Amino acid sequence: RIRTQASAFLIDKGNHRHFMAKEIHEQPEVVGRTLGHYLDMSSGHVALPFELPVDPATLSRLTICGCGTAYFSALMAKYWFERFARLPVDVEIASEFRYRDPPLDPSGLTIVVSQSGETADTLAALRCAKGKGQKILAIVNVASSTMSREADVVAPTLAGPEIGVASTKAFTCQLAVFAALALAFGRARGVLGAKEEARLIGELMAVPGLMAQALKCESAIEGLAREIGKVRDVLYLGRGAAYPLALEGALKLKEISYIHAEGYAAGELKHGPIALIDGDMPVIVIAPKDAVLEKTISNMQEVAARGGRLILIGDENLARDFAGEAEASIIMPEFPADFAGMVYAIPIQLIAYHTAVVMGKDADQPRNLAKSVTVE
Amino acid sequence: RIRTQASAFLIDKGNHRHFMAKEIHEQPEVVGRTLGHYLDMSSGHVALPFELPVDPATLSRLTICGCGTAYFSALMAKYWFERFARLPVDVEIASEFRYRDPPLDPSGLTIVVSQSGETADTLAALRCAKGKGQKILAIVNVASSTMSREADVVAPTLAGPEIGVASTKAFTCQLAVFAALALAFGRARGVLGAKEEARLIGELMAVPGLMAQALKCESAIEGLAREIGKVRDVLYLGRGAAYPLALEGALKLKEISYIHAEGYAAGELKHGPIALIDGDMPVIVIAPKDAVLEKTISNMQEVAARGGRLILIGDENLARDFAGEAEASIIMPEFPADFAGMVYAIPIQLIAYHTAVVMGKDADQPRNLAKSVTVE
Repeated sequence: RIRTQASAFLIDKGNHRHFMAKEIHEQPEVVGRTLGHYLDMSSGHVALPFELPVDPATLSRLTICGCGTAYFSALMAKYWFERFARLPVDVEIASEFRYRDPPLDPSGLTIVVSQSGETADTLAALRCAKGKGQKILAIVNVASSTMSREADVVAPTLAGPEIGVASTKAFTCQLAVFAALALAFGRARGVLGAKEEARLIGELMAVPGLMAQALKCESAIEGLAREIGKVRDVLYLGRGAAYPLALEGALKLKEISYIHAEGYAAGELKHGPIALIDGDMPVIVIAPKDAVLEKTISNMQEVAARGGRLILIGDENLARDFAGEAEASIIMPEFPADFAGMVYAIPIQLIAYHTAVVMGKDADQPRNLAKSVTVE
Repeated sequence: RIRTQASAFLIDKGNHRHFMAKEIHEQPEVVGRTLGHYLDMSSGHVALPFELPVDPATLSRLTICGCGTAYFSALMAKYWFERFARLPVDVEIASEFRYRDPPLDPSGLTIVVSQSGETADTLAALRCAKGKGQKILAIVNVASSTMSREADVVAPTLAGPEIGVASTKAFTCQLAVFAALALAFGRARGVLGAKEEARLIGELMAVPGLMAQALKCESAIEGLAREIGKVRDVLYLGRGAAYPLALEGALKLKEISYIHAEGYAAGELKHGPIALIDGDMPVIVIAPKDAVLEKTISNMQEVAARGGRLILIGDENLARDFAGEAEASIIMPEFPADFAGMVYAIPIQLIAYHTAVVMGKDADQPRNLAKSVTVE
């Protein structure tokens, strides 16, 4: 009977060796499906499939809670809510939030994010915020979960079942939901006009196609993974919305390859981590062509000037400019950077996956980790 | 001439081999002096030596910006402002804040924190917040600095000149100022009564003496440092106000020993970093006797159950309970935990210092790092 189960599992992986690989490759499809659930693509408007429990125009701030990867998706969402809706956002690690007795406006809104909808600390954060009178919007992947039942509104990610312990497609689908919500809030708060909304929705609609293009970097990443598989430490750097992605990239690599990877805001490089730079530790810089690219470039130059092993993820122009300094470049398509985090998530995930495979680790079942952390 | 300068430097170190050691040992004195500047110790009240530029009772939130160690002091302050003044706090990495065009209330208050008062990103954050109409309070150690000139109010840390590149006494003096401000805000907002204020001020006044006691763990830490000096990776864990201290402990070790140390909120352990636990990497748990100690203990048990190298910083009772599981225990005095972060900073700094010394690194002049980061 065990054997039968195993075979069923193998079938479900399709042509992939691991669920994680399958789930990475599913992202153009499931992100497209999730976006389709929240956007009216023909008219270029957000069309939320539910009534918001508060009027975004009346909010003075927004609280978002999650753990692990879901927390990082919330960190990226903060940039979007602030930019598109001029709404200040507090992003909280659920295990800290729940025990801190945070001061919350009783007429406010808390968003909780969890793939399973069962994460113990996030569920406790939901109850804590609810107890203080906040309305709750839950972004979950499992529709029948406890958080779905206890929230005022459920915003589903349509990622389908995620089996790999290291979250991939749930993460990018959480980002898709956040992007749609940020635009909806921006409209409701009078920050975005219809034209600006339509332009941004056009950009969002392009994301699944760009993700499919980004997946083409896989063979380059397989080569890179053979080098990363030899090291003990990796530093990920990013600025702006790429900063949460640096944290997520480090978490992915940690989780499945057990390499000590750490993510840092690139601007903090000089305040400490630059001391670690040597000829051994790869420094992976996530550098989409956004408003802070020039600043990120100066951090790349600092790494190179100290003999660091620079690996960059950026577009062709950037790779050309750093052809002399970078040990490797992962080339992303060129596109407007507003939602670049969703596309740049792909190489981040592939680096972790292929490094684990090269090292002979089980990418789907890393040691010590459970898929859903349903106890504290 | 160079020789004369060197001698002068040696005299200034007193009996210590490095400025960093001298500065660590000065903390009971300079923290006491800083507290004395902000508290009326005889009456048990906060007595701020300046007029606040806004009435704390009217604030809906507070923004605090810094880089590196100053950023971590702000993260700890968040716990205090929220708890003692019920004031929501946004703590921002200055290099992220300045480029994000954050939505700020024009009648609000931003606190900037910097030892030198010249940190480029923090200065830019000051100007950004000021440009949006916010009042600025600057916590700086150098009275003649640019931030002092540009802020509406200057709250000095009376740490004296800090020469070691890795900040120690400036950090705890920043915490002392924050603690006094949090209590002043708590009184002004009607959250703290006079009796509660007096009790907390009593606790604050005890901090310098407790720091002196904490310094007695130095010989135990010298032994521990010989073990840490052999490893490549260290994980620091803490919850609540000990979480920023975990980040600061990791930063200190990184800066001067070049060991890849990372700090994590203990509750996030199961969401990723637990995969790194093995028989090689020390896990240093900062566990004062506070409201979340039971939760921290369960994280310690998880580390031990997976064969991790558990090193704990806590009081005698905790050390006794974990005598079987912990590889080493650094014993702190027992005291009410409201401001434990200031006392527990001592072993955190000593671990980094002695590890660097054991490894033959120059603790005062680590590679690649400058004392003040006055360029971006």
